[in-house]
Amino acid sequence: MTRIVLAVMGLCLLLPWGAEAAEMSDATAECLECHQSIAPGMVKAWQMSRHAQVSPAQALQKPALERRVSAAGVPEQLLKTTVGCAECHTLNAAKHRDVFEHNGYQVHVLVTPGDCATCHPVEAGQYKENIMSQAYGNLKNNTLYRDLTTSINGVQSMSGDVLTLQPQNELTDADSCYSCHGTRIELEGMQSRDTEMGEMDFPVLSGWPNEGVGRLNPDGTVGSCASCHTMHRFSIEMARKPHTCAQCHSGPDVPAYKVYKVSKHGNVYNSLGGKWDFAAVPWTVGRDFTAPTCAACHVSLVATEEGGVLAERSHQMSDRLSWRIFGLIYAHAYPKSADTSIIRNSAGQPLPTDLNGKAAASYLIDGKEQQKRTAAMQAICLGCHSQSWVAGHWQRFENTIETTNAMTLTATRLMQKAWAAGLARGPEQKDSIFNEAIERKWAEQWLFFANTVRFSSAMLGTDYGAFANGRWYMSKTIMEMDDWLRLHSRKVQKTRKK
Amino acid sequence: MTRIVLAVMGLCLLLPWGAEAAEMSDATAECLECHQSIAPGMVKAWQMSRHAQVSPAQALQKPALERRVSAAGVPEQLLKTTVGCAECHTLNAAKHRDVFEHNGYQVHVLVTPGDCATCHPVEAGQYKENIMSQAYGNLKNNTLYRDLTTSINGVQSMSGDVLTLQPQNELTDADSCYSCHGTRIELEGMQSRDTEMGEMDFPVLSGWPNEGVGRLNPDGTVGSCASCHTMHRFSIEMARKPHTCAQCHSGPDVPAYKVYKVSKHGNVYNSLGGKWDFAAVPWTVGRDFTAPTCAACHVSLVATEEGGVLAERSHQMSDRLSWRIFGLIYAHAYPKSADTSIIRNSAGQPLPTDLNGKAAASYLIDGKEQQKRTAAMQAICLGCHSQSWVAGHWQRFENTIETTNAMTLTATRLMQKAWAAGLARGPEQKDSIFNEAIERKWAEQWLFFANTVRFSSAMLGTDYGAFANGRWYMSKTIMEMDDWLRLHSRKVQKTRKK
Amino acid sequence: MTRIVLAVMGLCLLLPWGAEAAEMSDATAECLECHQSIAPGMVKAWQMSRHAQVSPAQALQKPALERRVSAAGVPEQLLKTTVGCAECHTLNAAKHRDVFEHNGYQVHVLVTPGDCATCHPVEAGQYKENIMSQAYGNLKNNTLYRDLTTSINGVQSMSGDVLTLQPQNELTDADSCYSCHGTRIELEGMQSRDTEMGEMDFPVLSGWPNEGVGRLNPDGTVGSCASCHTMHRFSIEMARKPHTCAQCHSGPDVPAYKVYKVSKHGNVYNSLGGKWDFAAVPWTVGRDFTAPTCAACHVSLVATEEGGVLAERSHQMSDRLSWRIFGLIYAHAYPKSADTSIIRNSAGQPLPTDLNGKAAASYLIDGKEQQKRTAAMQAICLGCHSQSWVAGHWQRFENTIETTNAMTLTATRLMQKAWAAGLARGPEQKDSIFNEAIERKWAEQWLFFANTVRFSSAMLGTDYGAFANGRWYMSKTIMEMDDWLRLHSRKVQKTRKK
Repeated sequence: MTRIVLAVMGLCLLLPWGAEAAEMSDATAECLECHQSIAPGMVKAWQMSRHAQVSPAQALQKPALERRVSAAGVPEQLLKTTVGCAECHTLNAAKHRDVFEHNGYQVHVLVTPGDCATCHPVEAGQYKENIMSQAYGNLKNNTLYRDLTTSINGVQSMSGDVLTLQPQNELTDADSCYSCHGTRIELEGMQSRDTEMGEMDFPVLSGWPNEGVGRLNPDGTVGSCASCHTMHRFSIEMARKPHTCAQCHSGPDVPAYKVYKVSKHGNVYNSLGGKWDFAAVPWTVGRDFTAPTCAACHVSLVATEEGGVLAERSHQMSDRLSWRIFGLIYAHAYPKSADTSIIRNSAGQPLPTDLNGKAAASYLIDGKEQQKRTAAMQAICLGCHSQSWVAGHWQRFENTIETTNAMTLTATRLMQKAWAAGLARGPEQKDSIFNEAIERKWAEQWLFFANTVRFSSAMLGTDYGAFANGRWYMSKTIMEMDDWLRLHSRKVQKTRKK
Repeated sequence: MTRIVLAVMGLCLLLPWGAEAAEMSDATAECLECHQSIAPGMVKAWQMSRHAQVSPAQALQKPALERRVSAAGVPEQLLKTTVGCAECHTLNAAKHRDVFEHNGYQVHVLVTPGDCATCHPVEAGQYKENIMSQAYGNLKNNTLYRDLTTSINGVQSMSGDVLTLQPQNELTDADSCYSCHGTRIELEGMQSRDTEMGEMDFPVLSGWPNEGVGRLNPDGTVGSCASCHTMHRFSIEMARKPHTCAQCHSGPDVPAYKVYKVSKHGNVYNSLGGKWDFAAVPWTVGRDFTAPTCAACHVSLVATEEGGVLAERSHQMSDRLSWRIFGLIYAHAYPKSADTSIIRNSAGQPLPTDLNGKAAASYLIDGKEQQKRTAAMQAICLGCHSQSWVAGHWQRFENTIETTNAMTLTATRLMQKAWAAGLARGPEQKDSIFNEAIERKWAEQWLFFANTVRFSSAMLGTDYGAFANGRWYMSKTIMEMDDWLRLHSRKVQKTRKK
Repeated sequence: MTRIVLAVMGLCLLLPWGAEAAEMSDATAECLECHQSIAPGMVKAWQMSRHAQVSPAQALQKPALERRVSAAGVPEQLLKTTVGCAECHTLNAAKHRDVFEHNGYQVHVLVTPGDCATCHPVEAGQYKENIMSQAYGNLKNNTLYRDLTTSINGVQSMSGDVLTLQPQNELTDADSCYSCHGTRIELEGMQSRDTEMGEMDFPVLSGWPNEGVGRLNPDGTVGSCASCHTMHRFSIEMARKPHTCAQCHSGPDVPAYKVYKVSKHGNVYNSLGGKWDFAAVPWTVGRDFTAPTCAACHVSLVATEEGGVLAERSHQMSDRLSWRIFGLIYAHAYPKSADTSIIRNSAGQPLPTDLNGKAAASYLIDGKEQQKRTAAMQAICLGCHSQSWVAGHWQRFENTIETTNAMTLTATRLMQKAWAAGLARGPEQKDSIFNEAIERKWAEQWLFFANTVRFSSAMLGTDYGAFANGRWYMSKTIMEMDDWLRLHSRKVQKTRKK
């Protein structure tokens, strides 16, 4: 009965008139018998999803450009029913260390990119090469960045007159950096719980809950498709809207969403987007949408009404990124490998440039590859803009990369003066470079300000880059570091004279 | 004629086919004869409201869960007509000190919770126990917080070489803190004005306009239902949307809306909320909405499609709040009484904790009550999430309460060092603890940063708590206070040597 | 064929049943033959525009209040076809220095207010008197503000131990201040490019792309209608939504949009605006919208359902502005001329006040004109609010102008002390007043904080003015400047003693 109601809902929403709705499997129907009343919001979300309405067999029949399933074929037992609880949460059970016996089924809590790859192997494959999939290790396995997270997340206390830093626990990390970067999810044991169905056993997972982009999963895979394709609706509409990206790309370290909001593109989206078609595959420029969201430039399959393809779908977003403009001291050519923890600069530090900006070139893409990626991105711009428009814009963007790097270099020179004069303890003392007030000021120059200016340039949200965390602060930081140095130098000089 | 048009409008919008629309009263019709052209936008807003379309008699017939009127009965003279100008603005006239004679009616400018209670007594009663209803006195009657507002709103001037602080006037207070907290509205006298209808007398009210949550009204009641149920539409849709709460809960002192925006919940709302039903009573999870807004967790009657109740409607929002996470130096168990100006810590200060974090326990709820409230809140989480999900989230939240309190304690210890060394003038000198640069830095630690981190944890908008006014600044503040202390200490030492 | 399809689209969207859709011109059809596939998004945007569906002849037939075309008549050759590529981009070719031969047509890249004035002369005429039209010169021709931009946009480097400032290049300016203020667009030469149609010549334009409000165009006109009426949809809906203004009015220097967001008006717009009619001309308060957006108060023709006019349409927005509350050191009576670079204070500086706040009165409107403008603005307020409401609000606003000016004066006195004591190099040394840390702190007092408080007062977004870049920071800045002065004064004293 439930199954019939759901099938009818599906028919109305997603299937052409006359098409036959797929039914859910018996196993999924069994799940719903209890779960419909245990977490009804979760079930309703799934019921409204395409997964609840279309079977893989039906999905495979779509013409190439309209297909959302990239597998050539799907295992027989999954082919004819909709994609429900049982289909995903019992799939590949042998590989999942988080699997547990539940009412006769071997169920795993987490559904991972390894599971999604059954129907979406191209996307899962691309994502593995996407730098975001390595977000856990790129933080955890980089000694410099691990120190940065400790200086931010650790607990400072006073022991008598002395400030001491106690490293953060895993709960704090999961509530901070690793919320976006992804946690490591591991099975810690089993727990008995009284339920409406009597006592039952459930797994206890460390690092849970989490849907970070670089999550380490109990089946050995990395990432979470649900970061962007929110459970359990898995709506392409949502993934294409900028609010999804905004979850992790709003802060001063990566203010993409804030820049977008004050850009012409963001303005068009906010003013007119209510009438766009966010569910169409492929996504046709001008007809389905008249200004790009994040997805249009970075991920989606963008087509023209005449049937042309402006951009192939890619879950390896670096495909169109020639520069890496945030998160590191200097903007630089994009890294070759998604695993950036392997990079070493000429001083042996895990950074893509020296402290003075010299690139660790062997780890970064070359000029030819940069040109190729720039061309791929500009092909999307040219869907609405003239060549001279795009060329003019790009020239400014690359000029801004250069000037913001110059402003970071100046701040770095001042920082090095402070270290050299003993006014702060730095690399020579093997001390953290993030644990003193003046070091934080220096770090803000590149982590917040120079990076904000670059985003505002790249995405034409120039209002954000002028005063709001941008050029005003970039120039002021140098003045403040200079002011601090003058004040402390004199003090030091005097101290030395004694 | 006007009445007929309005009645027809009403029929189309809110009544089932076949139901008879209620008519407005003769008195309200008389009001509209002039006011329709005097402030047409105000009248149109009311015309689109449920008040303009349904009579209390009709409203009383709804089944229990669907009822918006909580009174068992409504006075006879209000029962059959719609709820118009005259019904509210002449109600309880004897109690209103702002009442004035107006075209033969005794009219009062303000409609207060005392008036609304005629039909909505349960909500008005709950709200009286809600801490927000005491927002005026909780600020005004707390000597420490009154000093804080003076240090923020007062006018600093130079008298020769000396900075002096002149306390702000009431206009400034009304334009700042008390805009949200509520002003005291008092009748100052009457004023004659030339109008299109000839010379007329109108009351002059101090503190007007204002719709702050703790407004002191001329009928002796506190609060304003219109804070959230915006005049004159009184739309439940609006009260349930996060933009209403955002009016007062966006600043760094209480960044709930900003955290929500970058949370998964906020993402779902912003991406898919355009298609939700915000007017349904009760509010059914999954069907009417698929992610909570502020109201879903804190106020609304939330039901399941199967007819269950996840949460009772409550206008005493503390019902589900076990911790108070903002506005005070340390996060602490929720106060027992809505009137927090009565609280005294062990040092006799009007604070729920000592400067070092020790709770003024007798004024705060105990662990058992905390557990009860936590369970009430988690019941809503469990509408969409599994038990292990909710437990994992809550564990992180309570860990974050602990670590942010620890970081505030460290900043406080540094502040106390400064006071002790005479580098700043504090409690011992009976000087304000908010009127020096270093004291402001200390205050930002708890008022802005620690509190932001807690909000980001509670509502899972972790991006906001990492860099944007969160952990980066919380850790940096301690470094900066230490830097300031070192610099000034040495200076003081020298001065002393002379 | 294309033309027929477009005409049918037009019929459905904008024309009354039975009306005859206008056709595009043969010239425009010729443009589309290629451009439909070259930049399909641009073409689609135009196809959805009113320009693509209605001919000037049809537009001229509208009743007075509904007319969007303000010309008494339109040249014969433009009258009968829709307003397409050729109509705008070949218009007034003789005046355009950016004109070039393109497939037999004399085409110019930019369409300017001079071109738009053919059908919209009243709006173009008003805009010329609008201060925004002079945004380029008001920055570039004011020596003080030019110095400010250099201090923000210039590149600071270390030459040995000395910080030096290299002025920014034009690319940086175009990517920063002049992105909103407008660039100077000049023809630099021609360039050959291989295209699908063979080698073709295109103009190379400096300062391109740009749609800043004060752009200097190659036909000698100033401004860009597309700043707000975004190409190529030219949607009145978009211009009326606050996201358009937000592009340039979100930063801390002019946080209008951020204040609006937390105001009751912004709340109503965000909660209920999805159902408003943003395309109706005139715009009827209460029926088409129930709370103002930026446009309602500052630009639009606002009418009542009874046919009255609350506000005439005006593209000279200063018509309703009695005070200038941002961008200058003190809030002051609005300047008389849109060209503010002509203003000189009593010290000969290009400022509307002295450093101590004394007005350069002869350049500013007098009290009588202020009253007239205040009344024009309040007429809109009175569309929804009572007289006592509006009077109370305005009294607070003018009190806040006074107190914020007082707080700026105090910061200025401290700055002058620093200059006098030689702790910073200022006007006497003919040094920039924006290039030292303490000078930046002073500048933030008026450019960010005092101005933010005034916006929050004017637009009732008081939450924004309390803590977020408002009163908290305004009061703290004075404390910090005082702290800095005490520290440095003592140091200077000692240095002098040697």
